[in-house]
Amino acid sequence: MTGRPLRVAMIGYGFMGSAHSVGWRQAPRMFDLPEAVEMAVVVGRNAQAVADAADRWGWAESATDWREVIARDDIDIVDIVTPGDSHAEIAIAALDAGKHVLCEKPLANTVDEAERMADAAARAAARGIRSMVGFTYRRVPAVTFLRDLIAQGAVGKIAQVRAAYRQDWLVDPETPLGWRLQKEHAGSGALGDIGAHIVDMTQFVTGLEVTAVSGVVDTIVKERPLLGSGSGLTGTAAEGYGEVTVDDVAIFTGRLSTGALVAFEATRFATGRKNDLSIEVSGDKGALRFDLEDLNTLWFYDRSAPAQTQGFTRILVTEASHPYVSAWWPAGHMLGYEHGFSHQVVDLVTAIAEGTDPEPGFAEGLSVQRVLAGVERSSADGSAWVRIDAGALTPGV
Amino acid sequence: MTGRPLRVAMIGYGFMGSAHSVGWRQAPRMFDLPEAVEMAVVVGRNAQAVADAADRWGWAESATDWREVIARDDIDIVDIVTPGDSHAEIAIAALDAGKHVLCEKPLANTVDEAERMADAAARAAARGIRSMVGFTYRRVPAVTFLRDLIAQGAVGKIAQVRAAYRQDWLVDPETPLGWRLQKEHAGSGALGDIGAHIVDMTQFVTGLEVTAVSGVVDTIVKERPLLGSGSGLTGTAAEGYGEVTVDDVAIFTGRLSTGALVAFEATRFATGRKNDLSIEVSGDKGALRFDLEDLNTLWFYDRSAPAQTQGFTRILVTEASHPYVSAWWPAGHMLGYEHGFSHQVVDLVTAIAEGTDPEPGFAEGLSVQRVLAGVERSSADGSAWVRIDAGALTPGV
Amino acid sequence: MTGRPLRVAMIGYGFMGSAHSVGWRQAPRMFDLPEAVEMAVVVGRNAQAVADAADRWGWAESATDWREVIARDDIDIVDIVTPGDSHAEIAIAALDAGKHVLCEKPLANTVDEAERMADAAARAAARGIRSMVGFTYRRVPAVTFLRDLIAQGAVGKIAQVRAAYRQDWLVDPETPLGWRLQKEHAGSGALGDIGAHIVDMTQFVTGLEVTAVSGVVDTIVKERPLLGSGSGLTGTAAEGYGEVTVDDVAIFTGRLSTGALVAFEATRFATGRKNDLSIEVSGDKGALRFDLEDLNTLWFYDRSAPAQTQGFTRILVTEASHPYVSAWWPAGHMLGYEHGFSHQVVDLVTAIAEGTDPEPGFAEGLSVQRVLAGVERSSADGSAWVRIDAGALTPGV
Amino acid sequence: MTGRPLRVAMIGYGFMGSAHSVGWRQAPRMFDLPEAVEMAVVVGRNAQAVADAADRWGWAESATDWREVIARDDIDIVDIVTPGDSHAEIAIAALDAGKHVLCEKPLANTVDEAERMADAAARAAARGIRSMVGFTYRRVPAVTFLRDLIAQGAVGKIAQVRAAYRQDWLVDPETPLGWRLQKEHAGSGALGDIGAHIVDMTQFVTGLEVTAVSGVVDTIVKERPLLGSGSGLTGTAAEGYGEVTVDDVAIFTGRLSTGALVAFEATRFATGRKNDLSIEVSGDKGALRFDLEDLNTLWFYDRSAPAQTQGFTRILVTEASHPYVSAWWPAGHMLGYEHGFSHQVVDLVTAIAEGTDPEPGFAEGLSVQRVLAGVERSSADGSAWVRIDAGALTPGV
Repeated sequence: MTGRPLRVAMIGYGFMGSAHSVGWRQAPRMFDLPEAVEMAVVVGRNAQAVADAADRWGWAESATDWREVIARDDIDIVDIVTPGDSHAEIAIAALDAGKHVLCEKPLANTVDEAERMADAAARAAARGIRSMVGFTYRRVPAVTFLRDLIAQGAVGKIAQVRAAYRQDWLVDPETPLGWRLQKEHAGSGALGDIGAHIVDMTQFVTGLEVTAVSGVVDTIVKERPLLGSGSGLTGTAAEGYGEVTVDDVAIFTGRLSTGALVAFEATRFATGRKNDLSIEVSGDKGALRFDLEDLNTLWFYDRSAPAQTQGFTRILVTEASHPYVSAWWPAGHMLGYEHGFSHQVVDLVTAIAEGTDPEPGFAEGLSVQRVLAGVERSSADGSAWVRIDAGALTPGV
Repeated sequence: MTGRPLRVAMIGYGFMGSAHSVGWRQAPRMFDLPEAVEMAVVVGRNAQAVADAADRWGWAESATDWREVIARDDIDIVDIVTPGDSHAEIAIAALDAGKHVLCEKPLANTVDEAERMADAAARAAARGIRSMVGFTYRRVPAVTFLRDLIAQGAVGKIAQVRAAYRQDWLVDPETPLGWRLQKEHAGSGALGDIGAHIVDMTQFVTGLEVTAVSGVVDTIVKERPLLGSGSGLTGTAAEGYGEVTVDDVAIFTGRLSTGALVAFEATRFATGRKNDLSIEVSGDKGALRFDLEDLNTLWFYDRSAPAQTQGFTRILVTEASHPYVSAWWPAGHMLGYEHGFSHQVVDLVTAIAEGTDPEPGFAEGLSVQRVLAGVERSSADGSAWVRIDAGALTPGV
Repeated sequence: MTGRPLRVAMIGYGFMGSAHSVGWRQAPRMFDLPEAVEMAVVVGRNAQAVADAADRWGWAESATDWREVIARDDIDIVDIVTPGDSHAEIAIAALDAGKHVLCEKPLANTVDEAERMADAAARAAARGIRSMVGFTYRRVPAVTFLRDLIAQGAVGKIAQVRAAYRQDWLVDPETPLGWRLQKEHAGSGALGDIGAHIVDMTQFVTGLEVTAVSGVVDTIVKERPLLGSGSGLTGTAAEGYGEVTVDDVAIFTGRLSTGALVAFEATRFATGRKNDLSIEVSGDKGALRFDLEDLNTLWFYDRSAPAQTQGFTRILVTEASHPYVSAWWPAGHMLGYEHGFSHQVVDLVTAIAEGTDPEPGFAEGLSVQRVLAGVERSSADGSAWVRIDAGALTPGV
Repeated sequence: MTGRPLRVAMIGYGFMGSAHSVGWRQAPRMFDLPEAVEMAVVVGRNAQAVADAADRWGWAESATDWREVIARDDIDIVDIVTPGDSHAEIAIAALDAGKHVLCEKPLANTVDEAERMADAAARAAARGIRSMVGFTYRRVPAVTFLRDLIAQGAVGKIAQVRAAYRQDWLVDPETPLGWRLQKEHAGSGALGDIGAHIVDMTQFVTGLEVTAVSGVVDTIVKERPLLGSGSGLTGTAAEGYGEVTVDDVAIFTGRLSTGALVAFEATRFATGRKNDLSIEVSGDKGALRFDLEDLNTLWFYDRSAPAQTQGFTRILVTEASHPYVSAWWPAGHMLGYEHGFSHQVVDLVTAIAEGTDPEPGFAEGLSVQRVLAGVERSSADGSAWVRIDAGALTPGV
C-alpha cells in the first residue's frame, strides 16, 4: 500500500461512466472502505466533452489519451467503461502497467480478446494486481442474498433454472439503425448485451458452470432507418434503410455441470418489458426467484415448511442483516439501480486492500463470452449442441 | 335433429370424468343451450365403481362395455375421458357409428393414431357428425378474450411468444413410479401432458401454426420407487426402484408460420409452481399475457396509449361483455377451473345444433401431436430443427 | 331423520337464487353428504317466471305462495333468498313450522327484525330445528383456512385488523336510482350490503366480537336518474332525478372485545375495484391477509421464521389438506365464487345430520346487524362511539 | 445572487442527515442546477461525532454552535434535520438571519410552534427568503406524476381517498422504550411520524385541504422495557418497564374541502409491513394508486378506456418523460428512497434561483400539523369531528 488514497482513472464517459461515477462518489461516504479512494481523472477523446463530464461527475481532472494516463505513477485503478471493442487493448495495457482494472461487461466482443484479457489478468494477479468485470447485478442485495441462500442449501439439489432478460426498445420497426445494431461496433445484439447478464447471473447464483448450449438467435426487424448523423439512437433524420447485423432475440438452453437444464431468453422485443431480468432456480428443497423490475424483493419457496402453509415468500431485502443493506437506510427503504455500483467499488477496494482476487474476475468474464459464442455457433449450426470446454467450443452435450 | 334431447355417453370416469360431468350438469342450467342434453350413461370396466360414479355424478345409467354403448340408437354424443392409449379406438368406432365425439386431450399417444382419428373425423364430418378435442383452457374467458383481442389487432404483428406450463409434483425424488411416468401407458411425460396445452394455446391465440421446432426433453429423476400395488400415484409401499421412461421437462423453441419464435417450457420440476400455465404474446402494437394461477385476469399492454401512461393493464375478465361470463355472476365474481368444461359443452352443443364444426377439431389435435412428436425427434437428434409438415416431420427450419 | 332425502324449498329466485341452486345441485355430487338432499320447490310471486327458474335450475316444482310451501310436510329445509325486508316474516314462520332455515345475509333490514329472528331460532333450536345465515364468504377455503390459522395461534395476540369491501358500480353519477338505492327497499346501502360481510368476516376469523364502533356513512351522489320502468338497475329511460336515500360509503372504526381496533371501509365508489373484499389481521406472532379478487390465495407473515427470510408467503389454498378442497380438483386448480355455496350446503346438511347448530347462526347474524346499526347511530351522532351491548346500543367505547 | 455558489449549513446529523447529505451531494452531479451549491458546514453538539459526520458525508467543516453558524455571512441555506422539538427555534432564527431554510418534517411538535414558524416564513418571504418543509415523498417520481395526472383531470371529480402508512417495528412488546415512544421528546407517535406523510401526500396529490377530522389514536403496548443506557432503540439492557406516552396507531377519517371523505391509517403494528405508505384516489373518471414499497410504479384506472379492456394499468415511472427521471437512468432502471432528497435539492435551489416560493412551504407544514392536532383532539373527545380552520380547531364537520 502506498499510504495515500487509491487514485482512480476512468476511461470512457457514457451512460456507464455516469453510473460508475456514482459508485466511486457514494461508496466512500456510505461504507467504511478499508482504503480511501480518489476520483482522479476521467479520459475521453473529445477534450471538451470529457472536461464537462469531469466537472459534472466530480473527477479531479480530465484527459484525452488513455495511454498517458495509465502510464502515470499516481494512478492505482483503471475503470474501463468504453464500448466493448476497446476493452481488450486498454485492459491489457493497464494490467501490464501494474494498475488494478475494473472492466465493464461484456468483457470483450470476442472470445479471442477475452482470452487474452484473462491471460493478462492471470499474469497480473501473480504480481498482486487485481482485475474485475462489472457484472453489477450480482451486487443487487436481493441477488447476492439469493446466491447466499443457494450456497446454504436453501433449494437443495438444483433441478432446473430459467433466466430471461426482456426489453422492448426495438419493438418499433422505425427505431433507427444505431451502433448497437451494427455487428462491427456492438459485436452482438441482445445476446451479448443482456444475454451476458443472465449467463453470468446463472453461473453466479448456482455456483455451477454452463457446459453446453443449444439455441437460436434471430433478427426480427431486418432493416431499419439509417441515421443521417450517425450519432446514436436518438436521431430522427432517416435516410433510407440499412441492414441490422446483430440479433434481436436469443433463445437458448444451457446444460449446467450437474446436468441440470437452463432455459435462457434474451430479447429486445418483449413489448411492455422495460428492463426485466428474471431468474428462477428450482431445486428439491425449494426455489428462489428474482426480478430486476422488483429489485428489492426476493421470492423463496421452502419445501421444508409445513405443507399447508407452503408458498412463495416475498422477502423485502432491505433488512440490515441482508448483504450491503446496513450501510444505507432502515428496513423498508428501497434501493435502486445505481447502488450496485457502490457495492462494486466496496468489493473491489476491499479485495485490493486485503490482497485477494475480487469476483467476478476476468476468467469468469471469459467463461460468459464462451457461452455466448457457443450460442452463436449453435444457432449457425441449426441449434446443434455446442460444448463449452475450458479452451474450446466443440459439438455435443 | 331428433326432437328429443341430445343423449351423452361418457367413456371413462377418472378425474377428467368428474370435470366433464360438471360441464354436462352445469351448462344446461347456466346457459341457454340450443338443444337439451341428457347425461345418459357412463362407461367403465369396473361395474361397481362406474355405477358409483354414475350415482354420484348424476348419470342415468352405467355400463361396462363401451362398444355396446356406442352401438345404441339413443346415444348422440360420446365423450371420451379415458387414458390416451384408448382414444383412437373408441373415437374412431364412435364416429363410424355416427356419434358426435368429444375427446379429451391429448388426442392420442402417437401421431399415427392421431392421423387415423383425424381421418375418421373428416369422414364423419362429411356426414354431419362433429368431433372436438378437449383443450378446455381455450375456454377460460380470459384466454378466449386474449384470442379475440389478438384477432382484432391488439398486439399487431406478432414478434415473439413465450409459453410455459410449470408444475412441481415430481420434485420429490421419492414420488413413486406411477403410470404417468411409464411410457407404455402415458406415451409421454411433461411434454404430452402439459406441453400439449401450451402448443395448442399458442396456435389458438395467435391463429398461427408452429411449423418447426428444436428442443430437448430430459428426465431429471431417472429412477423412482416402485409401487407395490401398482395402483397409482398414491401408493406408499415402495418395493425397490424402477426406471422413469418419460420426460420430466421439455424445453423447446418453435417457429410460427410467420417466422416468429416461441419459447416453450413444460416441466414438472418447477418447485412451488402448482399449475402454472402462462403465455405472453408480444407484437409491434402491444402485448397480452395470461397466467392460469390468476385465471380471471388478463394483462394487456397497449402501445397506442399515451407514452407516459403506458403499462400492462390488469383486466379482470369478469364483465358481462367478456366471453361466456354473462351466464354466470356479476362483475368481480371469480370463475374457476371447471367453468371451462361448461363452456366446452356450450360450444359443442351449439355446433351440433347449428351444423358447424366445433373447434378445436381432430385436425387441430393432430397438429399438436405433430409438434410434440417433432420435439421428441429434435431432442433425439441433438436438438436439430424438425419441420412440421402437413404430413411429415422433416429436418430443417 | 325421516329415512328419505332432505327436501328443500327455496323462497326467491334472483341472483342469489341462482347461486344457492348451484350449491344444492353441486354439493351432493362433489361431497359425501351425510344426508341426501332434493331440490323440491322454488317459490316466487310471478308464476311463469318462477316456473322458468325451476326448470332452468333443476327444482322439481315451483310455487307462488311461500306460506303454503312451508306448511307442507314433505319440506325439511327452507332456503330464503328474497330481499332483506321479507326475511323476518318468512324465516320465523318457517322455524315455527319446524323447518330448518338457511337465510341469505343480511339477516334482516333492522335490528328489531333480527332480534325476533334470533329469538325464533333459539326457540326452534330447542326443538332440534337448525338455522343458519348465508355469509358464504366464510366458506371460501382461503378464508376458512385463515380462521383456522388464527385459531391455532399463527398471528398470536391480535394487535389490529383492517377490513374493506370496495366496489365501483356507483361511480357513474348517471347510474339510475334502482331499488338498492332506496332505503325503504334496501334498508341500507354499502353499509348493509357489503359492510355486513366485513363485519361478519372480522368476527369470524378473529373469534372476537366488535364491542363498539365510531364512524360515518355518506352519500356521494345525492340524486340519480329515475327509472321509468322501475324495473331495476339496467333501465335506461331516466325520467328526472330522485333522491338517493342510502349510503354510498361507510368508513368506521371498531373496537374488538380485546381492545384491538379495526379499520373498516365499505364503498361502492372505489373506481376500478369490482368486488374487492380484503382483510388483514396483524398480531405479535404474525399476520394474515386475504383478498376476494384473488380468491384462492392467502398471505401469511410468520414472525417465527428466520429474520432474513421473513416475508409474506403467498399460499395457494388449493391443496387437498386445505378446507373443502379435497372434494374438488388437484392442487393448483382454481375455485371460484360459487363454490362457497356448495360448502354452505355441506355444512348445513352435516349440522342437521349430526344434530348440531350450524355457524353462523341467527344470533351471529343479529350481532352483525347490531354493529351496522351502531355505525348508523354513530354517524348520526357526529361519529361518537356507540357501544354494542348484547341487547342495546349505548354511547361510549 | 452573490455570484458564488450557494453555501449550505446542515443542523443535525442523524439518519436524516445522511439522507440530506446524499441529496446535496448528488443533485449537482445528476441535474443541471441553476446555481452551484457547496456543502459548507454540518452542525452538532458532539464535536467529535459531528466532525466524523462531516468527514464521512463530505461537508467542508463541522461546528457545534448552530447560532454561530447561522450568523455567518458565507452561509446561504440552513438545512434542519434535528428532532422536531428544536425545529421552531432554529428555523425562526435562521429565517430572521436571512437564510433560506429547508426544515425536515414534521414542521414542529406543536401547532403553536408551527404557527410561529409559518409567520416567520411569511415575513422572510417578503424579503425574498425561501422556506420549505421536507416532505420528500412528494418527490418520488411516481407520486409527483400521480399529482400531475390528477391535476390534468385523469380521475375527474374525486369521490374518495384512502391513505395508509403501515410499519411493524413495534410489534414486539419487548422493543424498548426509546425516545420516539416518549411524548416529551417525540411529540407524537405514529400520528406525527408517519401520519404526517399521508396527510401531506393527500393534500398534495388532490390539491385539496383536509377541513375536518374524526378519529382515534391508541397505544397498543402500554409499557415497554426501559433502556439502561437511554441511548436509543437498539439497547438491550432493560431495567424494568416504563410507560409508552405516544400513540402506536392512529385511525381517522378526513373531510376534504369538496366534501369527499378520506380513510387514514397510520400504524407501527402492521406485522410484516415495513414501510408501506399507500394512497388511492378514486374519482368519477378514474383512479390512481401508489405504494411506497413498490416505489417506481403507479397504477392508473382509466374509465374512458373501452369497457372490455378497462383495468388498473401498472405504469413503470422510469421513462425520461416522467418527473425527475431524465436526469438518472434509462427506462426500466429503478430509483430508490434517497432520490427524493436530490429532487428536493433541485426544487429548492431552482426556487431560490428563480425567486419563487418552493413547495411545500411552512404554511403547508402548518396545515398538516393542524390536521394532526385535530385528530388528537377528536380522539380525546370520543372521536367527535373537529373542524380545521385557518386559525383554529373547532367542533363540527
